[in-house]
Amino acid sequence: MSAIQPVLDRLDADLDASLERLFSFVRIPSISTDQAYAPDVRRAAEWLVDDLKSIGFDASVRDTSGHPMVVAHHEGPEGSPHVLFYGHYDVQPVDPLELWEDDPFDPKLKEVEPGRKIITGRGSSDDKGQLMLFVEACRAWKAVHGSLPCKITLLFEGEEETGSPSLKPFLEANKEELKADFALVCDTSMWDRDTPAISVGLRGLVGEEVTIHAANRDLHSGHYGGAAANPIRILAKILADIHDENGRVTIPGFYDGVEETPSQVKASWDALNLTPEKFLGEIGLSIPSGEKDRSLLELVWARPTAEFNGISGGYEGEGFKTVIAAQASAKVSFRLVHKQDPEQIRAAFRAFVEERLPADCSVTFEKHGGSPAIQLSYDSPIVTRAKSALSDEWNKQALTIAMGGSIPIVGDFQKLLGMESLLVGFALDDDRIHSPNEKYELSSFHKGQRSWARILAALTA
Amino acid sequence: MSAIQPVLDRLDADLDASLERLFSFVRIPSISTDQAYAPDVRRAAEWLVDDLKSIGFDASVRDTSGHPMVVAHHEGPEGSPHVLFYGHYDVQPVDPLELWEDDPFDPKLKEVEPGRKIITGRGSSDDKGQLMLFVEACRAWKAVHGSLPCKITLLFEGEEETGSPSLKPFLEANKEELKADFALVCDTSMWDRDTPAISVGLRGLVGEEVTIHAANRDLHSGHYGGAAANPIRILAKILADIHDENGRVTIPGFYDGVEETPSQVKASWDALNLTPEKFLGEIGLSIPSGEKDRSLLELVWARPTAEFNGISGGYEGEGFKTVIAAQASAKVSFRLVHKQDPEQIRAAFRAFVEERLPADCSVTFEKHGGSPAIQLSYDSPIVTRAKSALSDEWNKQALTIAMGGSIPIVGDFQKLLGMESLLVGFALDDDRIHSPNEKYELSSFHKGQRSWARILAALTA
Repeated sequence: MSAIQPVLDRLDADLDASLERLFSFVRIPSISTDQAYAPDVRRAAEWLVDDLKSIGFDASVRDTSGHPMVVAHHEGPEGSPHVLFYGHYDVQPVDPLELWEDDPFDPKLKEVEPGRKIITGRGSSDDKGQLMLFVEACRAWKAVHGSLPCKITLLFEGEEETGSPSLKPFLEANKEELKADFALVCDTSMWDRDTPAISVGLRGLVGEEVTIHAANRDLHSGHYGGAAANPIRILAKILADIHDENGRVTIPGFYDGVEETPSQVKASWDALNLTPEKFLGEIGLSIPSGEKDRSLLELVWARPTAEFNGISGGYEGEGFKTVIAAQASAKVSFRLVHKQDPEQIRAAFRAFVEERLPADCSVTFEKHGGSPAIQLSYDSPIVTRAKSALSDEWNKQALTIAMGGSIPIVGDFQKLLGMESLLVGFALDDDRIHSPNEKYELSSFHKGQRSWARILAALTA
Repeated sequence: MSAIQPVLDRLDADLDASLERLFSFVRIPSISTDQAYAPDVRRAAEWLVDDLKSIGFDASVRDTSGHPMVVAHHEGPEGSPHVLFYGHYDVQPVDPLELWEDDPFDPKLKEVEPGRKIITGRGSSDDKGQLMLFVEACRAWKAVHGSLPCKITLLFEGEEETGSPSLKPFLEANKEELKADFALVCDTSMWDRDTPAISVGLRGLVGEEVTIHAANRDLHSGHYGGAAANPIRILAKILADIHDENGRVTIPGFYDGVEETPSQVKASWDALNLTPEKFLGEIGLSIPSGEKDRSLLELVWARPTAEFNGISGGYEGEGFKTVIAAQASAKVSFRLVHKQDPEQIRAAFRAFVEERLPADCSVTFEKHGGSPAIQLSYDSPIVTRAKSALSDEWNKQALTIAMGGSIPIVGDFQKLLGMESLLVGFALDDDRIHSPNEKYELSSFHKGQRSWARILAALTA
């Protein structure tokens, strides 16, 4: 540990300056799903390149057919491993804006209780805050030692929140440049505010937008009500059919490839003793909505879901309008586990909808990304070393857990670059990522930087 | 008929000028449901008052707690009946604006096929065009004879499209002033472009907005999917439960007060020979969506409905957002017939929703108007005389029909002022009222003016 202590000291001394850097980065509204923000997405990429060059990385903005990638390289000592670190610099939309207590793009440090501070803003956690931890660890290491402990490549994406359409082509086109001994992926969470965690299971995702088309124009519900097909009624019926009374998804073949979680893994999750009251209580709920007779952690880590992420149709404004809409649509997503096949699920969903459509109506589908689930090793040497480094920093045994969310890049690294990933992140479940009032704990920001420095030391010792 | 011919001639000669007056009126965007347009609603009321004063009416804008009323009086010959004519000068919203071929508030006269012209614009039919017919008939009568054939009171409302919240209090507060021998109501349709009609049945309406509240904030569907209640899923299930597989409404007690249509009335409707292909074909549909084993005219004229007029929740923007929303809501309306009780239906609907709500979620309701159905006489002397006048003008037997829409004022006139109504209007089913590209036939505008002049003559002969 002789190399690491001065790096940790340097990170402590540089904390205020590192916060200012994060604030500058968060101020750029790099919302990837809305084309109106495309210039801001590019500006965020350029901001990263400038910062990485200042540390000594060979960094550049790399165009794609969508938003650009940022790629940066730094050499390491002869014989050291080559590590690829991945993060994303795009962010989710901010609507409904009126629910934000602070400007989402004017980040602040706020004391929320004595001794506990948070960083506010869209992207403060997902993923600008998380990715800057590693950049800060590199900056401090370089400042103290004049070098880095291993060869490091950074890959920062600007389309993660829109299903990463350009990522696979980019990986394929730049295989030789990007292939490393292993990848570090930072887009994950801690178990709780004091307990670091490494994620070894990730759910996959299939996104679909379904639009039911009925009459060729909006209709007056008095003249046509009782005679004309109502697309909201048709859509509601189809969505309602997707779950049975036990919370199981009824789409034929949906559970193909779903495995039972090994009993010892289940037992380790049960030992975490996370009750529905605790997990759901902080968001104002208490009853698990998924399959009955499954534990809460099974539901969010090891069972697939069908969720309705948005619905719209007819008159949604103030007051009332007695209209029968011409169309209605829903955004539907499926979280996948184990060996479920995304494209098989997509096809089964589309067939399920089409079977339920009245003969005089039609349906259109829009594809929004698809990726299978990931299952990584619980006990590889890299996982064991990283657990030890995290346990040292947080003074608490690091956990190996699964995650309900999807990080498709981990599968792409496996398939396209033949490279396993180590998933370490410092977000918390209450960070409100994708929601109004996103935040990042200052403790995550500070000890997260130190954690990455320790992990780099452990992996290259 | 000596008094009427010069009035008809005058209407023919004044047609262009009457069109210009309607255009000025339509140019005022008097959208009552959106408070942003409140000044325009008032401006429309003032426009009417100015026009009516120019004819010699004692006209004024009358404030309410919502949008104002316009009331105007004109004396008639000693012993003549007193007639109250009702219309509304507010209009529906215009969204989605991009679907309009012409500016909704810049009306035009367009030739759509040889010999057939239409008037474009929001309100051109519903109800500015329809109410101006009667005003033009009065103007011509006054110009020719220097007087009107009977005592006439005009009542024009600015809140019809928002459930008329101020109407009842206004009628109650001004009973003596407004009570007449009978009312003329113009907010109805012809059977087809060449066949005039008198409406004797009107469906009632109950409007409800239901919002399902689940988590206390929007959630990431990866972290919480499978565990947290999804309000879109809950709402879709509740809406789907409202109809059974035969199209019947399943809310307990919903059909209380619904009567079977007399067989001779049903037979007269069957004789009109309106097929689903004809009625629904022009809107791109072909299969009646309501109760099976009912004729199409029964479905729209004599059976109650549950319709979903709007739905919203979660992310509705461009792209995709993997969110579980905190809430989702729907605008639901019920068309009522015969003796169904609006408040009983509202209560039954609310109980139906509450019974289906998970214990950790909540629901809020917003009331949007309620009125019972109306059944008028098929063969009173007034109906008989008006039918004859209409048949003379259109050179075709006028029909007595029912209507799928709601005109709550007819019930209010019955209950509060003890006054029956005669319902005559010249709209067509394809006028696209409440939709983009609303229009009014020039033939309706011209022959409608002449029809009202003939009806005034017939009723006062």
